[in-house]
Amino acid sequence: MPSSIVPQTNLPRALKPGDRIGIAAPASPFDGKSFEAGLGVLESMGFNPVVPEGLFEKNGFLAGTDRHRADQLTRLFTDPEIDGIICARGGYGSMRILPLLDADVLAKHPKVFVGFSDITALIGFLVQRCGMTVFHGPSVTTLGDGNLQTREHLMAALTRAEPLTLTAEAGRTIHSGRAQGPFLCGNLTLFCHLTGTPFQPDLKDRILLIEDRGEAPYRIDRMLTQMRMAGCFQGLAGLAVGAFTDCGSSRQINEIVADRLSGLDIPILAGFDAGHEGVNMTLPVGVPARLDTASKTLSFLNPAVR
Amino acid sequence: MPSSIVPQTNLPRALKPGDRIGIAAPASPFDGKSFEAGLGVLESMGFNPVVPEGLFEKNGFLAGTDRHRADQLTRLFTDPEIDGIICARGGYGSMRILPLLDADVLAKHPKVFVGFSDITALIGFLVQRCGMTVFHGPSVTTLGDGNLQTREHLMAALTRAEPLTLTAEAGRTIHSGRAQGPFLCGNLTLFCHLTGTPFQPDLKDRILLIEDRGEAPYRIDRMLTQMRMAGCFQGLAGLAVGAFTDCGSSRQINEIVADRLSGLDIPILAGFDAGHEGVNMTLPVGVPARLDTASKTLSFLNPAVR
Repeated sequence: MPSSIVPQTNLPRALKPGDRIGIAAPASPFDGKSFEAGLGVLESMGFNPVVPEGLFEKNGFLAGTDRHRADQLTRLFTDPEIDGIICARGGYGSMRILPLLDADVLAKHPKVFVGFSDITALIGFLVQRCGMTVFHGPSVTTLGDGNLQTREHLMAALTRAEPLTLTAEAGRTIHSGRAQGPFLCGNLTLFCHLTGTPFQPDLKDRILLIEDRGEAPYRIDRMLTQMRMAGCFQGLAGLAVGAFTDCGSSRQINEIVADRLSGLDIPILAGFDAGHEGVNMTLPVGVPARLDTASKTLSFLNPAVR
Repeated sequence: MPSSIVPQTNLPRALKPGDRIGIAAPASPFDGKSFEAGLGVLESMGFNPVVPEGLFEKNGFLAGTDRHRADQLTRLFTDPEIDGIICARGGYGSMRILPLLDADVLAKHPKVFVGFSDITALIGFLVQRCGMTVFHGPSVTTLGDGNLQTREHLMAALTRAEPLTLTAEAGRTIHSGRAQGPFLCGNLTLFCHLTGTPFQPDLKDRILLIEDRGEAPYRIDRMLTQMRMAGCFQGLAGLAVGAFTDCGSSRQINEIVADRLSGLDIPILAGFDAGHEGVNMTLPVGVPARLDTASKTLSFLNPAVR
């Protein structure tokens, strides 16, 4: 276990009622009805959602050209009238805009930023290249799905400067132990598709949480095999497993994780409420966390907002 | 265009009637009925298919443990009674056994080796690590599908020491030009899942042919994006596009290829008969080839067998 906690240099400010939350669409176009429902939820939380011009662009499976999506996202960070950012949807396309983002510019404007699934590419970029603390949590189009716990967790995470502790109530220990390190969280498929690129996630000393959706068990095996072969898991401090939705049984996923990460001797704990089904907890990425299979907890050691 | 042709050091011997073809199952278990049909086709060609003990092992989505599959494959190469090798099926699992194969041992036993899809991982290994010439072509379980051209091409490729020329009759030029280099061929998904690993294909100066099946257009885009970002296409001499089955329209695939490889200024020609539908030509991997969009041809410059 590393003795010192990596300092967080770039904490966003906590949101408060009336704050303006800019909506970003860095990946795929999205469904209007779910989007409206999600906006309604943000309003019911007391926020003021801001829909930028050009948000509804459509370019095949992308929400506009790469340049358009990169510029839109950059503008949300640099605009002083915008207090926080939430993504409309994942889908696909975030990784395409990474070469068009200027890490130095974004790093000067730390803001609450929320998304998941395809947005994993941006989460990794903002945390690793900009030293920012960001949030793995619901998108606008999933926020209206009626899950009240998801909403409550989002509200708490974005507004309270208090460290969070998650308990995997029905969690399954795949490898016992306790470890701590800066937290990273995202979609396995996306991490896998960044492997070998300049944007490959650096997992050394980190506590990693992975989730996925709609990938057959052999595909989960293939992704973990690639990442293991590529050395991605070297030095990883601990692994938390979130929801694997429509990926086969959780027993099978846990067996695959145990097999593909065998020999690493790090704590691995499955059963966290993060991902594409049920409760999608809002988790602070970049914040130091401790994973403990004895207490089945993932504890964040610092606040995620100031 | 490189002025010299990379020498082939490790040519297999051409097969002749009565030769013993060993069946390998380095990936997934397979369907008995298609397998029997394929064996019948090999027999009708005058070959003597050899089914090794343990071929029907099953370990979830794998045809036995990694050690079992690696040992079986190694034995087929080293056994002097076996004249050639054809894979029962792809599926998934070839990449898992790569670290268990001894390239020096295999390189001493060049033999006709045929497979495709998941077998791409082995094709890359045998060509790049062993300097062997191998064949991208049907597996036993696809050979019985009734496609007579696939069978005729397989027979010709394995038995005749004559260079082959392929014409993409209804081929579509994505970027015009002419180039030559050693030929590599395989499944895009597999190439993508080797990216960042020690088994990443070295595409420099090569003519590459890709095919795939059952991957949505945004996934094809994502794979090409990853490989481009990882630098895989740097120095690539030319690209041939085979069948993209159940991946959306060929027009859309061609557009994605054009977009993701834009700026490379290499010949790109789509419409070759290789992959998961229709005719699956048996193509010699490792042999120098010339891709010419004017004549819509992929011409092999040397024989693939001695």
